[in-house]
Amino acid sequence: MTELDLAGQGVATLETAPTRYVEGHGIRFAYRRLGPATGTPLILLQHFSGNIDAWDPVVVNALATDRPVIAFDNAGVGRSTGQTPDNVAAMAKDALAFINLLGLSEVDLLGFSLGGCVAQLIAAEQEQLVRKLILVGTAPKGGEEHLLAVLQEAFSQTDAPDPRLPLFFTKSSASRSSGLAFLKRTKLREDDRDTDNGPAVTDPQAKALITWCATPDPEHSILRAILQPTLVVSGSHDTMLPANNAYAMFKELSNAQLILYPDSGHGALFQYPEMFVSHVRTFLEAPPATA
Amino acid sequence: MTELDLAGQGVATLETAPTRYVEGHGIRFAYRRLGPATGTPLILLQHFSGNIDAWDPVVVNALATDRPVIAFDNAGVGRSTGQTPDNVAAMAKDALAFINLLGLSEVDLLGFSLGGCVAQLIAAEQEQLVRKLILVGTAPKGGEEHLLAVLQEAFSQTDAPDPRLPLFFTKSSASRSSGLAFLKRTKLREDDRDTDNGPAVTDPQAKALITWCATPDPEHSILRAILQPTLVVSGSHDTMLPANNAYAMFKELSNAQLILYPDSGHGALFQYPEMFVSHVRTFLEAPPATA
Repeated sequence: MTELDLAGQGVATLETAPTRYVEGHGIRFAYRRLGPATGTPLILLQHFSGNIDAWDPVVVNALATDRPVIAFDNAGVGRSTGQTPDNVAAMAKDALAFINLLGLSEVDLLGFSLGGCVAQLIAAEQEQLVRKLILVGTAPKGGEEHLLAVLQEAFSQTDAPDPRLPLFFTKSSASRSSGLAFLKRTKLREDDRDTDNGPAVTDPQAKALITWCATPDPEHSILRAILQPTLVVSGSHDTMLPANNAYAMFKELSNAQLILYPDSGHGALFQYPEMFVSHVRTFLEAPPATA
Repeated sequence: MTELDLAGQGVATLETAPTRYVEGHGIRFAYRRLGPATGTPLILLQHFSGNIDAWDPVVVNALATDRPVIAFDNAGVGRSTGQTPDNVAAMAKDALAFINLLGLSEVDLLGFSLGGCVAQLIAAEQEQLVRKLILVGTAPKGGEEHLLAVLQEAFSQTDAPDPRLPLFFTKSSASRSSGLAFLKRTKLREDDRDTDNGPAVTDPQAKALITWCATPDPEHSILRAILQPTLVVSGSHDTMLPANNAYAMFKELSNAQLILYPDSGHGALFQYPEMFVSHVRTFLEAPPATA
């Protein structure tokens, strides 16, 4: 199905867009492409254990009203083939291969959690390719993470309808209620849903995230190599990758804006979807600072 | 001149709106009112040494496109009569008297620098009156300030066209160039300009700000009494009231959003006027969190 076919069918959404595939470097990548045919595409880099259908349709569809948005499964994840690597550098290499396979010469990156670590590396190494960077609920190399403790706590809550409820949201009724609404939205797509991930994905991903945070980077070499305008976003009470990471990244990055949301956890971007989209749009549309 | 007369003349701006006066509590307050006649008014609380014409017309006029905006001189400042007090509590009392004199039953507050200290106190004490709170480039009680050192440094730069250039902006060419544009905008109004402030204003104001920061509030009693949704904004390199204050306030406030801007000083809101207005609007328009 071509872009024009899609246009003829009305606006494609995360729930309705066909999953497409592109192959190269020994990997067949699954992805969905939304939004207009022209403009700098925004590439979404997903969190630990997530697949394409783990994105919030409200966020993705709203972002795609005025720019191309591409959600994909990195190597080994969801319906992409290949092996999930156990380190962020290899994930960045795979993601870069995917971007190159699509023939894109300029992109914006939105990396959430583990995807934010991957996005940092790509931006640091690809100054020409990456125009702007959005880092959500993530950590710098050598940052603070509580992945295993938080996962253990979340999976012990057997009454939770989905581990993402305690993992991504706070215990307040407002946050919990936003969380339930988010979970409902991620289930809207019925046909052609992405494949859930098992230990072959989550084990190496957990190792990658933990190693990333356990490896000191006292000179902040990665953050300092990121020259692109960067928006750093975090929830006030992110138990997995605390907001202190966001503030620390803001201080080391040369051109960063920081936005922290109230009463929110790791999934702050899904708790305040309209506000998050407004902030992303304002950031992506801001003209470069002029001397 | 009534609202209707003004409407007949087209849209009033900070540069063109007549200065009005309202009297009570022994003070004749000078103010300008912009924007539509209905809606929750946004009251602007000005920084140390500033008068009504020290606001950025681009920021104020843009905010006034969809809500009433009121800029005023607190007691003793600019063309308001009375004495400038040497403490934040008395300034809050005067500002509250002004709001009451206008007969307003619900307002949003935007407090910048010293005005942000005043706004904190009013919001903490007036839960019914204050709907939402915006704190820009300010400090909590017991916070960190470098007012005198920074003023001394700024006034030693005799080649600066205005002390606000080194006080409000960084040394980068982009920030400096935004600063020069801001200064030009504050001079656009020719007739009926506000009166500049001398030591009778700045001496007690300096004492108020320094005392506010020198008085510990280990229990964060003021911040914890603020229950309204609050937007905290700061520049990355504010030398007078550092961004650490903003992060500290964000952490203690029960319902705060934090936004920090890159490569910016005390006047971050005037360096990124369009972005700041977009962020303020998004914040003010967000519906209350629902349980």
